[in-house]
Amino acid sequence: MSALRLIDKPECPFCWRVRIAAALQSREVESLDRSEPEVLAEWQRLSPHRSVPVLIDGDLVLTDSGPILEYLAETGMALLPDSPRQRAEARSWMAYGDNVLGRSMREVVFEKRDKPEDEWDQERIREGVRGFLQGLPTIEKALDNGPFLAGGQPTLAECALFPRFALALTYGVEVPSDFPRIRQWIKRMVVHPAFMSASPERVRNILVEYA
Amino acid sequence: MSALRLIDKPECPFCWRVRIAAALQSREVESLDRSEPEVLAEWQRLSPHRSVPVLIDGDLVLTDSGPILEYLAETGMALLPDSPRQRAEARSWMAYGDNVLGRSMREVVFEKRDKPEDEWDQERIREGVRGFLQGLPTIEKALDNGPFLAGGQPTLAECALFPRFALALTYGVEVPSDFPRIRQWIKRMVVHPAFMSASPERVRNILVEYA
Repeated sequence: MSALRLIDKPECPFCWRVRIAAALQSREVESLDRSEPEVLAEWQRLSPHRSVPVLIDGDLVLTDSGPILEYLAETGMALLPDSPRQRAEARSWMAYGDNVLGRSMREVVFEKRDKPEDEWDQERIREGVRGFLQGLPTIEKALDNGPFLAGGQPTLAECALFPRFALALTYGVEVPSDFPRIRQWIKRMVVHPAFMSASPERVRNILVEYA
Repeated sequence: MSALRLIDKPECPFCWRVRIAAALQSREVESLDRSEPEVLAEWQRLSPHRSVPVLIDGDLVLTDSGPILEYLAETGMALLPDSPRQRAEARSWMAYGDNVLGRSMREVVFEKRDKPEDEWDQERIREGVRGFLQGLPTIEKALDNGPFLAGGQPTLAECALFPRFALALTYGVEVPSDFPRIRQWIKRMVVHPAFMSASPERVRNILVEYA
């Protein structure tokens, strides 16, 4: 297997999921931080629409996390269950994470990350947190069926959702105690070496305390 | 194979691509128009985040076009090439269609569809058309390698991109003559029964004239 290279932004949830996936496969991926000047130039050449992550495998260049994750799943082990139904469920969780959790959390992250605390728009933050929490019952219910969302092992579902929850924690949004299965599931991932090693250092410290 | 049902909105490009995919597989899918009152109630129950398309296969309910298309590809013929690289390319074209062409064309469609002509924001339309046209050289170049974007047969790439171009035509945006390969490729799809049968009737009439 040729060496994979990833043009990467450590706290971007779309890059992060690719790093988790590669770690779950015990697959080596060279992470190139997009903010380094020499990486920046390569990135501008390879990603005409200026998105991260970018996966480079020889002369194959993929610029969207969806196709990247499917490519990893097809050329390495794990990541998706065997049955088409469970595979569909795993992929649906990715979409759910982006459309429901991600869309809400983004408001909180952007507000808190980009401004000093006394300028935070508290209404925007409350709205984001509310949207995030409204997405939890569906996940809690699904975790009734097993330790992970689509079968007995972590799949693309966890690759995509873990960064959402880790970012929430990082920005002060905890999962309330009336979602015990989600809390257990997060802890299951925090003690899993693939999830931990793929997380940005700043976040890793927060996760360790949580577990 | 059990009968598939699709909660559908005829001119939605995400629904449309599912209908094309099923037609390419010669697979029967019952289309349920979301605007019918009895469908509306089922839709509200099945799609908590109110999105279309929704695919129903027995007790499996999928509410996002990405997982739906992958599910069709895994449980039926055609739609994706055999090699992981070409499969990755086909999936990347879907993302390209959404992020580049779709994002621009949406501005044109929303502006023209929702207002009388004398109230159109011409600047918004120009900007949308400009974005759409800027996305064409990459496609023209890719069509250098064959009649379709990822190999010798239509794939998920064409399922996702055809509706973008058909909608562009419907809203008065033609592909300029300096993109001869794209124009040939569109005609190849227009004369293909799967693409034609999956298109909304109003659009079909415009396409017939184009070919």
